Amino acid sequence: KTHIDCMTSQKLVKLPGLIDIHVHVREPGATHKEDFSSCTAAALAGGVTMILCMPNTSPPTTDQASLALTQKLARLNARCDYGLYVGAGTDNADLLPPLGNSAIAMKMYLNNTYGPLKLDDITVWMQHFEKWPKHLPIVCHAEGQTMAAALLMAEFYKRSIHIAHVAKREEIVVIRQAKDRGMQVTCEVCPHHLFLTQDDLEAIGHARGQVKPPIQTKEDQDALWENMDIIDCFATDHAPHSVEEKEGPKPPPGYPGLETMLPLLLTAVTDGRITMEDLIAKLYHNPRRIFNLPEQKDTYIEVDMDSEWTIPKYMKFTKSKWTPFAGMKVRGAIRRVVLRGEVAYVDGQVLVPPGFGQDVRTETDAVVFAKPIGPAPKPVPVPVPHIAGGEPAPPTVL
Amino acid sequence: KTHIDCMTSQKLVKLPGLIDIHVHVREPGATHKEDFSSCTAAALAGGVTMILCMPNTSPPTTDQASLALTQKLARLNARCDYGLYVGAGTDNADLLPPLGNSAIAMKMYLNNTYGPLKLDDITVWMQHFEKWPKHLPIVCHAEGQTMAAALLMAEFYKRSIHIAHVAKREEIVVIRQAKDRGMQVTCEVCPHHLFLTQDDLEAIGHARGQVKPPIQTKEDQDALWENMDIIDCFATDHAPHSVEEKEGPKPPPGYPGLETMLPLLLTAVTDGRITMEDLIAKLYHNPRRIFNLPEQKDTYIEVDMDSEWTIPKYMKFTKSKWTPFAGMKVRGAIRRVVLRGEVAYVDGQVLVPPGFGQDVRTETDAVVFAKPIGPAPKPVPVPVPHIAGGEPAPPTVL
Ligand SMILES: [Zn+2]
Ligand SMILES: [Zn+2]
Ligand SMILES: [Zn+2]
Ligand SMILES: [Zn+2]
Ligand SMILES: [Zn+2]
Ligand SMILES: [Zn+2]
Ligand SMILES: [Zn+2]
Ligand SMILES: [Zn+2]
Repeated sequence: KTHIDCMTSQKLVKLPGLIDIHVHVREPGATHKEDFSSCTAAALAGGVTMILCMPNTSPPTTDQASLALTQKLARLNARCDYGLYVGAGTDNADLLPPLGNSAIAMKMYLNNTYGPLKLDDITVWMQHFEKWPKHLPIVCHAEGQTMAAALLMAEFYKRSIHIAHVAKREEIVVIRQAKDRGMQVTCEVCPHHLFLTQDDLEAIGHARGQVKPPIQTKEDQDALWENMDIIDCFATDHAPHSVEEKEGPKPPPGYPGLETMLPLLLTAVTDGRITMEDLIAKLYHNPRRIFNLPEQKDTYIEVDMDSEWTIPKYMKFTKSKWTPFAGMKVRGAIRRVVLRGEVAYVDGQVLVPPGFGQDVRTETDAVVFAKPIGPAPKPVPVPVPHIAGGEPAPPTVL
Repeated sequence: KTHIDCMTSQKLVKLPGLIDIHVHVREPGATHKEDFSSCTAAALAGGVTMILCMPNTSPPTTDQASLALTQKLARLNARCDYGLYVGAGTDNADLLPPLGNSAIAMKMYLNNTYGPLKLDDITVWMQHFEKWPKHLPIVCHAEGQTMAAALLMAEFYKRSIHIAHVAKREEIVVIRQAKDRGMQVTCEVCPHHLFLTQDDLEAIGHARGQVKPPIQTKEDQDALWENMDIIDCFATDHAPHSVEEKEGPKPPPGYPGLETMLPLLLTAVTDGRITMEDLIAKLYHNPRRIFNLPEQKDTYIEVDMDSEWTIPKYMKFTKSKWTPFAGMKVRGAIRRVVLRGEVAYVDGQVLVPPGFGQDVRTETDAVVFAKPIGPAPKPVPVPVPHIAGGEPAPPTVL
């Protein structure tokens, strides 16, 4: 009852290996919460074959030395492929651009968040927007008015910007306006903002329920679903903490999410709330386009669309032994994950060892920055334009 | 010693009647703090012949009825000319545009301020930016990131925006960027942000010293002076409260300022920190251009550039019996104010009665909205372009 309750099923569907552009691995610095080995095992169990790793580690990934440290730890311990963010700080606007070729993107923390990287002074934002290479993404944690202020920076410097974890109605409405006006803005939404509202916090517990941005109202949640056509990506914002920390006197914000995202979204597909092509666009095509990610050859996942189960108290692979989705009934399960020709996950078992994962920037020759990132797509119905080459088969009933 | 200490002087200079675009009259609703009669007497004593009156009164000026009430009170009691703002609320975006011809501009309170008009939800901002006529100004109380967010709205709706009381370095730096990029943004700076820093708050007292935006650091103050070329207007943000209120348990924010602005700025002219043409641009030409204000015929003021005096504990005409500038030595005094051919003020005496003032929107035929407000001028050295016709004589030694 507290573990996965499988049903026999015939309807297996093949999907591309999914890309989660927003993951907190916690290594280096907080490996009691999570590490590359456990995080990437959770990723594979969730159908995710590539994660982009946030820089608010300890030390934060804000210069050559900390990036080299994280690269080494990732190379030794990651089971799936990955890219590494660098973090904007108050005094590293000149240091980061030379790291652009090894990093996946620059992350800017413009609101209160977990870690030391918060930037208050807009003149510091301006330095980063001016200096970070235009063909590389800038990803912002920026809520509400701060998000609008960040969009002004993108407008000032005529460059793209990606807004992390959009959660509120006003945010998605402003993003729609910006896209309508041709601004190069893209955005992501997290499963917990799509599937939870403030009404769920009583059951989750207000301590465990802490997350940034917070869980919002039903009206905000509805606005996200209603604006699905302009949401570019789904991303977990997988932010594991130990249960002890979450129930301590100062509960840190963040939820684990890698093992629950796809089942929740497959349920939404079954329920007709999104299409499967929508799901693939937001977890594969759009991440590849926005972050200029290489193809992972011979990589796919197989999901059972008919498996019905109840999310247990905690998922198997993350060290964060709780989940805000506990008790939710879902339909859809990950059966098999094939990563670069190897069976990486099958029926509850992760089969690839730490070190199997590759850095998609430095361990592949598939990345070329031949052209700058194009403008964000207009709010058009999915499917979005495909990147030439490396196109996996469309979803197929096996 | 506590009153004006005049010296004989020969150097009288004639200037246009000044326009203060940011005044809180407190009538209706708080006439123990100030009223039209006392406020406009203070204006005249300060060389100001036209004030633009903020809408955060009680009731706030947010619809036809409250505007009519304020118009009536002003018509009966104002001694100098005036225009009335209307205030953006959460539910009056459709009600305000029809009032555009009688109002001077729309004020939006986007940060914490004194009164009930704060707007948090950006989607409400968007309604106002969309619906308020493009040829009429929008003036925003918007600090820091909120200011940047407001600029994005101006960019979205391709319209002008005026930023009230710029106080911080990051604000003026962002405004410079916006102007450089051709955005239609204008701004004002208050004497208290130009002449006071946090170091002065000990002497002023932290209760009395409360003001929104707060008094800033020396670095912020320096940035205002260094960016004088892109500051469009000086404005007092005259915000009178009784001394009892300012020293009570919850001191309300705001300083009186009408009677001290010009002496402080004349001192800056004498000290070579600004030019006289700068002063006239920011207190006459630019206010006229931005708010499309009529000429006040046969209107001018005479100032004595050599009169040295010390600002006393409080000024003569405002009901707010204190000033944050008490004890400051200034050079320059207002000797005579002629308003529409009448001597309105001479050597300490206000000579025009309540009711002499005219509403510059409804009691004059000089206002025509023949053309929309042009883009903000590029940061060019003053003098700024003159409005055709109605040009008073340049400053003249009498
Ligand atoms: Zn099974
Ligand atoms: Zn975040
Ligand atoms: Zn995050
Ligand atoms: Zn496709
Ligand atoms: Zn005298
Ligand atoms: Zn204000
Ligand atoms: Zn004000
Ligand atoms: Zn002039």
